[in-house]
Amino acid sequence: MIIMETGASESDIAAVIAEVRKHGLRSDIVRENASTVINVVGDQSGVPFAAFAGLPGVRQAERIEKPYRLINRECAREYGGDTGRRVIHVGDVAIGGDEPVFIAGPCAVQSRQQLFDIAEQVKTAGAHILRGGIFKPRSSVHSFQGLGSVSPEQAEEALSWLREAGDAFGMPVITEVRGETQVDLVARYVDILQIGTRNMYDQDLLAAAGRKKKPVLFKRHFGAGIEEFLSFAEYIAAEGNRDIMLCERGILPLGKGKSYTRYTLDLASIPVLQQESYLPVVVDPSHATGRRDLIGPMSRAAVAAGANALMIETHTDPDTSPVDAAQMITPDELKEVISSCRRLRNIETAVI
Amino acid sequence: MIIMETGASESDIAAVIAEVRKHGLRSDIVRENASTVINVVGDQSGVPFAAFAGLPGVRQAERIEKPYRLINRECAREYGGDTGRRVIHVGDVAIGGDEPVFIAGPCAVQSRQQLFDIAEQVKTAGAHILRGGIFKPRSSVHSFQGLGSVSPEQAEEALSWLREAGDAFGMPVITEVRGETQVDLVARYVDILQIGTRNMYDQDLLAAAGRKKKPVLFKRHFGAGIEEFLSFAEYIAAEGNRDIMLCERGILPLGKGKSYTRYTLDLASIPVLQQESYLPVVVDPSHATGRRDLIGPMSRAAVAAGANALMIETHTDPDTSPVDAAQMITPDELKEVISSCRRLRNIETAVI
Amino acid sequence: MIIMETGASESDIAAVIAEVRKHGLRSDIVRENASTVINVVGDQSGVPFAAFAGLPGVRQAERIEKPYRLINRECAREYGGDTGRRVIHVGDVAIGGDEPVFIAGPCAVQSRQQLFDIAEQVKTAGAHILRGGIFKPRSSVHSFQGLGSVSPEQAEEALSWLREAGDAFGMPVITEVRGETQVDLVARYVDILQIGTRNMYDQDLLAAAGRKKKPVLFKRHFGAGIEEFLSFAEYIAAEGNRDIMLCERGILPLGKGKSYTRYTLDLASIPVLQQESYLPVVVDPSHATGRRDLIGPMSRAAVAAGANALMIETHTDPDTSPVDAAQMITPDELKEVISSCRRLRNIETAVI
Amino acid sequence: MIIMETGASESDIAAVIAEVRKHGLRSDIVRENASTVINVVGDQSGVPFAAFAGLPGVRQAERIEKPYRLINRECAREYGGDTGRRVIHVGDVAIGGDEPVFIAGPCAVQSRQQLFDIAEQVKTAGAHILRGGIFKPRSSVHSFQGLGSVSPEQAEEALSWLREAGDAFGMPVITEVRGETQVDLVARYVDILQIGTRNMYDQDLLAAAGRKKKPVLFKRHFGAGIEEFLSFAEYIAAEGNRDIMLCERGILPLGKGKSYTRYTLDLASIPVLQQESYLPVVVDPSHATGRRDLIGPMSRAAVAAGANALMIETHTDPDTSPVDAAQMITPDELKEVISSCRRLRNIETAVI
Repeated sequence: MIIMETGASESDIAAVIAEVRKHGLRSDIVRENASTVINVVGDQSGVPFAAFAGLPGVRQAERIEKPYRLINRECAREYGGDTGRRVIHVGDVAIGGDEPVFIAGPCAVQSRQQLFDIAEQVKTAGAHILRGGIFKPRSSVHSFQGLGSVSPEQAEEALSWLREAGDAFGMPVITEVRGETQVDLVARYVDILQIGTRNMYDQDLLAAAGRKKKPVLFKRHFGAGIEEFLSFAEYIAAEGNRDIMLCERGILPLGKGKSYTRYTLDLASIPVLQQESYLPVVVDPSHATGRRDLIGPMSRAAVAAGANALMIETHTDPDTSPVDAAQMITPDELKEVISSCRRLRNIETAVI
Repeated sequence: MIIMETGASESDIAAVIAEVRKHGLRSDIVRENASTVINVVGDQSGVPFAAFAGLPGVRQAERIEKPYRLINRECAREYGGDTGRRVIHVGDVAIGGDEPVFIAGPCAVQSRQQLFDIAEQVKTAGAHILRGGIFKPRSSVHSFQGLGSVSPEQAEEALSWLREAGDAFGMPVITEVRGETQVDLVARYVDILQIGTRNMYDQDLLAAAGRKKKPVLFKRHFGAGIEEFLSFAEYIAAEGNRDIMLCERGILPLGKGKSYTRYTLDLASIPVLQQESYLPVVVDPSHATGRRDLIGPMSRAAVAAGANALMIETHTDPDTSPVDAAQMITPDELKEVISSCRRLRNIETAVI
Repeated sequence: MIIMETGASESDIAAVIAEVRKHGLRSDIVRENASTVINVVGDQSGVPFAAFAGLPGVRQAERIEKPYRLINRECAREYGGDTGRRVIHVGDVAIGGDEPVFIAGPCAVQSRQQLFDIAEQVKTAGAHILRGGIFKPRSSVHSFQGLGSVSPEQAEEALSWLREAGDAFGMPVITEVRGETQVDLVARYVDILQIGTRNMYDQDLLAAAGRKKKPVLFKRHFGAGIEEFLSFAEYIAAEGNRDIMLCERGILPLGKGKSYTRYTLDLASIPVLQQESYLPVVVDPSHATGRRDLIGPMSRAAVAAGANALMIETHTDPDTSPVDAAQMITPDELKEVISSCRRLRNIETAVI
Repeated sequence: MIIMETGASESDIAAVIAEVRKHGLRSDIVRENASTVINVVGDQSGVPFAAFAGLPGVRQAERIEKPYRLINRECAREYGGDTGRRVIHVGDVAIGGDEPVFIAGPCAVQSRQQLFDIAEQVKTAGAHILRGGIFKPRSSVHSFQGLGSVSPEQAEEALSWLREAGDAFGMPVITEVRGETQVDLVARYVDILQIGTRNMYDQDLLAAAGRKKKPVLFKRHFGAGIEEFLSFAEYIAAEGNRDIMLCERGILPLGKGKSYTRYTLDLASIPVLQQESYLPVVVDPSHATGRRDLIGPMSRAAVAAGANALMIETHTDPDTSPVDAAQMITPDELKEVISSCRRLRNIETAVI
């Protein structure tokens, strides 16, 4: 991290960036009023920070050892503003603000009609953002992979439905992007790029998504600790994109005996992530539990623990879905969940 | 399970019990108005249930395969009453009723004065039940094991302080009983017997505690799945004791990298346990997180998920505690936690 | 799976394939002497297999429910030959045959000289295949990512060193390919494509690597169960490539307390994988343990459990390595490991 | 740890012990030729070691922070003799010496005849020690708990069969002791006390078993890390008993998807435990895998990794066993396992 003197000249800054590049590193530049901070991105093990300190206009230069620096809470002032918590704005929706945000929609987009029906009803139920899976990364090559995998034309058509449904009902839209080569296409149609749990480690995808400068909803891998999760989120931030929503969606359950839930929802990760980073935290109770009857209690628990948003799979007729039927709720159930969560948050905000 | 005809005679019932005993099994008898159900306790693999069905006064006899039957939700009517949820009464406190119950006090009892100071303050903060550790089962034989391990006299003296403090401030008291041979002694002084996470598997302890007919707070082992947890709770119930509180206190965290919490608090276990059994569920956020700053959010999340009670380690001066200093909160902090949890529950009760 | 009559005509076969394609599915065709089997690849949930059965030349058509079918042990005859175990030939080396194969070399390629020095010495020590990391997928964007990440020119140069070193000392070469877009480049230079533990879930990478028709060393993710591991290996096989080596490299350790090894080496996976599939199994004790002193015992244990190959990180001067210094052994130590493993395998082969 | 001057008088030693006792601690005394070491057992946090150093005859007094000190490798000289590895002698059998020792017998003792038949055959197959379960700690109160739980008479009778069978065929005998109150009874009949995986944490049982001065086979809990396992073994050692065999029997498997083995056999724990402690290591492949077909490969792998003994459940007719039928092998299969393991060990001993 290199902090420039207040009022350092542009040529001073350019000289520092050039010097950084000489060491094979990139610069991430933060300007706020008259002050400039240059975050050095990459392997700094052999870098003589003392030398940077001697360059014109440099006030301070030091190596930071944390594997996540750009999204670290310590940088909250630069990236989080006055509250120290980053608020991500997507259309009229503010994720990370006072109100919990609800992202809802079907696990998989099946048809234009299905999507429009669900979109209308989740909007009525109180949802803010519309989700719909088009590229579904399934464990088995022999399972339905989403309309996106049928053909390039089908993929683009499904994406256009999502865009239209969002526009028709006044909701920003989000869908998962599975691989690096899909990023351009998907980014043309949606407002938020989702990176799924199994792709958390795909650095090339993370970098490509980061470069799009659109908000990214980034899911924790079910076998990843908090530090690893944040370290990979840093790959997105390293492209200059801080609009990252960290999403907890359940970790590996205990290995013995019958499992009553698909995963273990790690709700303590909410305050922990908010302590470690300035980024907002989203919770996905649908994949975490895999059980319709647990969406209500776990959504309320997540909000009570401070979650900034919830992503809840919703379907007008869950049992007809080719994927995740057991965990989707109906728009009517969603309405109840949203209403109880909102009241909880109001209470909590009043108290703390 | 053997269901008797309505109005079956006492001698019919006695004959069935005698027949059960012939197979080396025990009978657990449930009477409700005129109906009688005999639960067969023990290994029924070789037992001819058809033969029972032929005995006088028997309406139905069938083998139930679930490893937990006596505490199964299916028996909610018998043991849970009209609501199907068992309410455990300890003095004036009702665990499992409408209000969340708060159990608070120091991790370890250090002195009479310390205990009285804390008891007074947690009472003022709104706690209902006083906790205080006397036998501390520590991982290392070289760690402080609680006053109970210093000498038999010291153990009894510490127990008497707990009794007196509870009486002085109008709170039932609870402490951990570590081994089978301590059950008699501990049960003379306290209202609720606690069985700790590492002793979940100690069948002889479970049976001895069950026979005392005092409520038992039974903690899940950090490596135990839900089914195993309930199966071991069944050992307590098999002694005729249904006043069991199931306590979630965190399970093994993911194994790689820095751990931000001591354990992973599995809050989905609350609705799951309530679905599987009619017993009330207690959550211990102190041991689960090991972090003072997470007690608030995790307590609120637990209540939002439907927890019937919370056990929170509290100390007037946490840093002077020989054990668990990092996770204890002050009575003032406890007061805030209780107050916010109560308001959350009110909201929730109103909504659902 | 569609089994054709012996002697079915080419036009019969073409007609079946066309019919399969109509359902949006692909065909994987296995011919052996006069018999032909057509494996249907993709989501078969809505496919009327009965209809296939009525096509000319079809003997049998049935849906197989296993998430891995193409690599299933049941197909051992088609893909494993007489022994039912697939032997993968790379140059003169046979992986899956009687002798355990040793893959050795540095974690990361640092320079041409370093690579040649190590290559010469591991060859002398008895290694068969040369490894060297060029694209290193690190947890932190701020860690050394391998020479491959410095620049495209540097990547290609390092790959050419690897090729030359392999040729110079008569060893096939292997390196990791991190993302889909690197597959073409890497495949031009190496004999075996390695897919790392964190990329196990990257379906687009798997498919791209599968299409190259070069052997793929496929590492299990540290959070993946056996079934999931095999299901993802199926993505490679679905491209018509059966030259897949399944690599066990350690799974998540238990989460509490100090960890004495980086991961838990799951050696029972060796016989389990060999039971489930006809593919050879490779063990990587270096990443699994992270400890130089455990490479010997764990290598011997792996061979005793039936491993077909071992991949062992080796360096002439481990402490100078920018990555994984603690787990690399010297060529002299490698020689001892290889020699003891060979004698163990001889004994075992004689016995069983 | 307090090291006395060579030739310190008995009264000097007694004075130190008295001083230790004043602090509420116990002394574990090690004498070897003229030198004496006093290990202080218990919570030393408030103990002024400097004061001990000033007592007559004391050469050195220092606090050791490791949670396991008495069984620590650093004490190998005192307790392990010249080789630094403790050899435990039971009758003619030496556990921890050059040869791997085989413990075999049925999971549960069913009858005198069954036990004698199996005992004769496992002896012929090459086993050294006879095992047979009498008190079976089952997960369900409704499962068969072993003959020991039928009645006190039945328990004693079954124990006497085990004693007789061992004497008849020249094998020391081992059985599990489940609770503190059974220790006296069981110790009257058997040569080795076994403490099962679920009782690893039962400190009162550990202390009671330790006081018997008979060898203890101590199983790791499936959720316990290495450090915790060793810390609890220390409770046995703290009673003055160093004849402890550390038994690896599998840890929690990964939690997602179908499990192909009951537990994950952690074979790296063998060299790790031998590095941390001077105690011999036993491996139980039967409970770890739960699969008959994996006993062979996992036994060989364990021996190749340096295991000192193997405990293998064996039955003349596995399918008739009321417990663990799927994991027991026949005496013929045992013979093959033993024979291949012996040859492996010979190779290995020759090599290293």
